[in-house]
Amino acid sequence: MVWAPDPQAVGKTIDQLDTPCLLLDLDRLERNLDAMARFFADKPVRLRPHAKTHKTPNVARMQLERGAVGICCAKLGEAEVMAAGGISGILVTTEVVGPAKIRRLIGLAQQASVITVVDDAAAAQAVSDAAAAAGLRLRCLVDVDVGQHRTGVEPGESALDLALKVARMPGLELAGLQGYEGHAQHIVDPDERRTAHAAAMQPLCQTADLLAVHGLPTEIVSTGGTGTHQFAADYRAITEVQAGSYVVMDIEYGHVAGLSFESALTVLASVVSRSGTAAIVDAGYKSLSTDSGPPRAKNLDARYTPRGDEHGRLTFDSGNPLAIGDKVEITPSHCDTTINLHDLYYVTRDGRVVAVWPVAARGRVQ
Amino acid sequence: MVWAPDPQAVGKTIDQLDTPCLLLDLDRLERNLDAMARFFADKPVRLRPHAKTHKTPNVARMQLERGAVGICCAKLGEAEVMAAGGISGILVTTEVVGPAKIRRLIGLAQQASVITVVDDAAAAQAVSDAAAAAGLRLRCLVDVDVGQHRTGVEPGESALDLALKVARMPGLELAGLQGYEGHAQHIVDPDERRTAHAAAMQPLCQTADLLAVHGLPTEIVSTGGTGTHQFAADYRAITEVQAGSYVVMDIEYGHVAGLSFESALTVLASVVSRSGTAAIVDAGYKSLSTDSGPPRAKNLDARYTPRGDEHGRLTFDSGNPLAIGDKVEITPSHCDTTINLHDLYYVTRDGRVVAVWPVAARGRVQ
Repeated sequence: MVWAPDPQAVGKTIDQLDTPCLLLDLDRLERNLDAMARFFADKPVRLRPHAKTHKTPNVARMQLERGAVGICCAKLGEAEVMAAGGISGILVTTEVVGPAKIRRLIGLAQQASVITVVDDAAAAQAVSDAAAAAGLRLRCLVDVDVGQHRTGVEPGESALDLALKVARMPGLELAGLQGYEGHAQHIVDPDERRTAHAAAMQPLCQTADLLAVHGLPTEIVSTGGTGTHQFAADYRAITEVQAGSYVVMDIEYGHVAGLSFESALTVLASVVSRSGTAAIVDAGYKSLSTDSGPPRAKNLDARYTPRGDEHGRLTFDSGNPLAIGDKVEITPSHCDTTINLHDLYYVTRDGRVVAVWPVAARGRVQ
Repeated sequence: MVWAPDPQAVGKTIDQLDTPCLLLDLDRLERNLDAMARFFADKPVRLRPHAKTHKTPNVARMQLERGAVGICCAKLGEAEVMAAGGISGILVTTEVVGPAKIRRLIGLAQQASVITVVDDAAAAQAVSDAAAAAGLRLRCLVDVDVGQHRTGVEPGESALDLALKVARMPGLELAGLQGYEGHAQHIVDPDERRTAHAAAMQPLCQTADLLAVHGLPTEIVSTGGTGTHQFAADYRAITEVQAGSYVVMDIEYGHVAGLSFESALTVLASVVSRSGTAAIVDAGYKSLSTDSGPPRAKNLDARYTPRGDEHGRLTFDSGNPLAIGDKVEITPSHCDTTINLHDLYYVTRDGRVVAVWPVAARGRVQ
């Protein structure tokens, strides 16, 4: 008697769905995918969209059909789900560390085209040893810290030093650099954002030049996200952009000026209690992430505040148009972490469900 | 080739596990369960622990074996998982609204002993109609707002009015009241907490007396949580406490003075990158919730700050004892929402895995 997804959902109107559930507006999604594909169509830079946002091979296929050079995944578990869904050309954007993960990376590379990243010589050697033992040469990028101070080796001589070592490792095939400027993505003002982006790209491009001077390959220089994708083509050395959130957007990216993508994702919730100027809905921390600020009610002049794991409070300045049982859509503040809470997308067109897609890589944090 | 839980995990040491993963210390869990059971053993108040925290019938069974009168669930989906796991005596602590959910509530009640809550006459009538049509009388509590301002009808006359209506509904059997003082649970100072608790219990107990005066049943008056469980027995009208987090605790409850439960839950992470006084681990927003503040590294003098979906930064005041590949345990700030991110518990005793339990109700927000 454990609940299973309603097989009859297709054809239902949004109002007929049980709540809370994740709604994906297919028209908006497609327009976002088309707009990004169009943007890169006439540029030397390519798009390798990040699948950590959507976590479904369905959207990855739509991205590849529109010209994406491949996809990115944050974790091996995501990459395994994508490969099982027929996706290839997968850049795993985080370092693969430890024997269990290296075994899985080798297994993955035997079934799909995979690129890995490294920021440490000993860790790279461990991957190389396993790949060589399996008769593989794994394509590999040196991950460079361009100012985010998360992963990555220092640009310049440190990166060159690691690249020279990787180039000599029999199980790795050096293909270039990764340098993700995550710290620049959400800067609201476009001029400030462009300046922060430039400050990150300068050391990345200089490092690419340094590798080239030493005869090392730089056929891939992977960087960028939704907030900075417009600026990437200004740099000759950059070959691809890793944007993820553009597919559905969220409140946080909605604040970033100069982006032309549409909000395509909401959580449908029901009013379960009401009093005065407030309505309580059945979506709290376990349905809507709050790591990037509060979600926002769509088409309602109300403020959403989380009220525990399973409730949110919609507060109106005056009056309260909602009755118990009414359904409301709430736009996530952070798409990636909200999608990761849900098992299913209810995919809609013109307010009606046209498909139900599993969030196939949900929870694949390993 | 999609990743499946390692069937060989049992017998491994913690250091041999892949990361990030959720570790549950069985000795500490059992001591917490025993301590709470002992606390209520000689009191007129009973324990009906909240399963929204642990989300597994395995722990629910351990609670029932130790004398719990039943369990609580926040959502029907959780209750369905518990019932499928053989658990009965389930109080669903949130209002059941809408035809789809009412159908599921009826289905659940046909297979397990279930209690529902209501805070609105029309919503109660809809549940009653469906129950009566199925030939059922569902036990029901009137949910009272005791100051949390989430769900619940006003105490006193409003609650009495609803109780009188419910008592006349053929599909419902009024059993008493629920009044959860969530706002008092995390007050650090025990005297302040007791005062806030008293302010919430006064209207609840007065409402119970009012029902009794009108000949209405108050055999269940359900309230309380981990932070206030000690005070419940001071009130004659209160019959049961809904504590949940005591089973594993977390950083936020760790600040609450006067609780004697142990931290039994951590997320195991690996160092994947390092530089200077910082180490980057492979656990970010998608492995450790941040709705209740930052998680904390266990047994390390380091500060954890999330660095995106899949990374966290451990910062040491000076030095950095960690190497790439090292494993660290991180204690969640909020147990409920962190558990809900994971599919599996790695259950350990003396540092070795003795079982792997599915977080069976993970994601069951409907």
